[in-house]
Amino acid sequence: MTGAQLFFKCENLQKTGSFKIRGASNAILSLTEQEAAQGIVTQSSGNHGAAVACAAAWRRVPAWVVMPKNAPAVKAKIIEGYGGKIVFCEPTVTARKATCVRIQAETGAHLVHPYDDDRVIAGQATAAKELLEEEGDFDAVFAPVSGGGLLSGTCLGAKGIRTDVRVFGCEPGRADDAYRSLTSGTLQSLESSDTIADGLRASLAPRTFEILRRHVERILLVSEEEIISAARLVWERMKIIIEPSSAVAIAPLLKPGGVASLNLPKRADGGAPKLGVIFSGGNVDLSSLLWK
Amino acid sequence: MTGAQLFFKCENLQKTGSFKIRGASNAILSLTEQEAAQGIVTQSSGNHGAAVACAAAWRRVPAWVVMPKNAPAVKAKIIEGYGGKIVFCEPTVTARKATCVRIQAETGAHLVHPYDDDRVIAGQATAAKELLEEEGDFDAVFAPVSGGGLLSGTCLGAKGIRTDVRVFGCEPGRADDAYRSLTSGTLQSLESSDTIADGLRASLAPRTFEILRRHVERILLVSEEEIISAARLVWERMKIIIEPSSAVAIAPLLKPGGVASLNLPKRADGGAPKLGVIFSGGNVDLSSLLWK
Repeated sequence: MTGAQLFFKCENLQKTGSFKIRGASNAILSLTEQEAAQGIVTQSSGNHGAAVACAAAWRRVPAWVVMPKNAPAVKAKIIEGYGGKIVFCEPTVTARKATCVRIQAETGAHLVHPYDDDRVIAGQATAAKELLEEEGDFDAVFAPVSGGGLLSGTCLGAKGIRTDVRVFGCEPGRADDAYRSLTSGTLQSLESSDTIADGLRASLAPRTFEILRRHVERILLVSEEEIISAARLVWERMKIIIEPSSAVAIAPLLKPGGVASLNLPKRADGGAPKLGVIFSGGNVDLSSLLWK
Repeated sequence: MTGAQLFFKCENLQKTGSFKIRGASNAILSLTEQEAAQGIVTQSSGNHGAAVACAAAWRRVPAWVVMPKNAPAVKAKIIEGYGGKIVFCEPTVTARKATCVRIQAETGAHLVHPYDDDRVIAGQATAAKELLEEEGDFDAVFAPVSGGGLLSGTCLGAKGIRTDVRVFGCEPGRADDAYRSLTSGTLQSLESSDTIADGLRASLAPRTFEILRRHVERILLVSEEEIISAARLVWERMKIIIEPSSAVAIAPLLKPGGVASLNLPKRADGGAPKLGVIFSGGNVDLSSLLWK
């Protein structure tokens, strides 16, 4: 269908249903006893919250999770299932930050930011690292971008194994701050977004912006319709549940001429381009379908 | 959740989206040139049809597939995608047989029955064989039962590797002919059924009945509500798409006291029962959800 050889890193099958457990567990398990003692606090559209709740439970400390009140119900249920305490806030970056600061002040909890944290980025890097260690000579790797934790980690993990692999970020047109940041060369922000890819509504931090501007080939934008249609194709043919944020990473390859437009150099073996796609997670609210 | 260790054979991820390619390819690839020359005909609620179309295409001969007109649209689309020619009939056993006989007479095609065929049963046996070879010392294995091809093969494949493993058949209460056949000791039939497990609307043949009465522990019945709720749990937590017929094989284990009611002997290692569940397929019509 795409004219390429595709390999998938299925983080939808990962513990807690997304790649987020990689960064959260790396951060939380590396804290000193004193840092961890009062518990953990984080802000999250859901998957990072579940991961923090899970890793905090492994560490036997409490976790407070600040999440926007428009996040899918299934994500709140999962966080509570891991013993996390949910604090709802308005769905804006400003409100999330303010609520997080308030909880830190009240409880003394240690902040594990979803992406503006080197320990978190190092954890997320292991997904691409494993993919390249297992499947070798990729021409390019594709990951969704939101705050940039996964995409930064993908750059570091993939290029650490294979210097000349290209890394593309994939982003909803309705939450295009990474695209605008990288094309303008200045960090852009996104106060809020209603993209169906509910895991991709955050904005880059200076830390992730710096990594991406050095390592990412470019950002590929996709429409809401392309996200939904890509998700449906994967459910129908691959028989796995991916959330819309995961579909964003394959949607650019399914556009007519999508792979050709990447202008990848010819492979030495003369074969079709070998591409790695990171499916970030599989937590969707199954009380309704994404499509009608 | 069940008090058992569960291992799954995910035939939803199999070529053509179900275990049926095992039996169909074994049958079709073992035909002589003369037997295969005029093509293949079969009757199928869908998955066997897709498998026959696929294996016939590998053999480069035509395939006619007789299917009930109430089968899901996605299954017809898949069969046509493999180059199969679909012939619709009324959703009764009688109509399916009659239409099959007519096509045989008109074309000279070779019949590959979905389950009343030793070559097909031998092919289906490889699923349980692989499961036991890979994961070892199971106490019991669970497979859905319809015409009995998969369940017969599961008995032969599992007990061929490990003599004392118990095999349970799982069946919708609304299509309980195997249950009635095994409890009465006389082959019972089912003229039609409206169970949501659309792959399980056929009845045992004398051939499969004979294998099951010798090898199956017993048949476990489940309600429509239990099937739907089991399917939803698997989609939600395992992040894989299974069709309702697959859910039938795990539904008995999710009932309160389900595993205890099997009266399995204690394990030598003192651990929880080790159970294998065969997910038969993942072909569902994604234009609507099974649940409301």
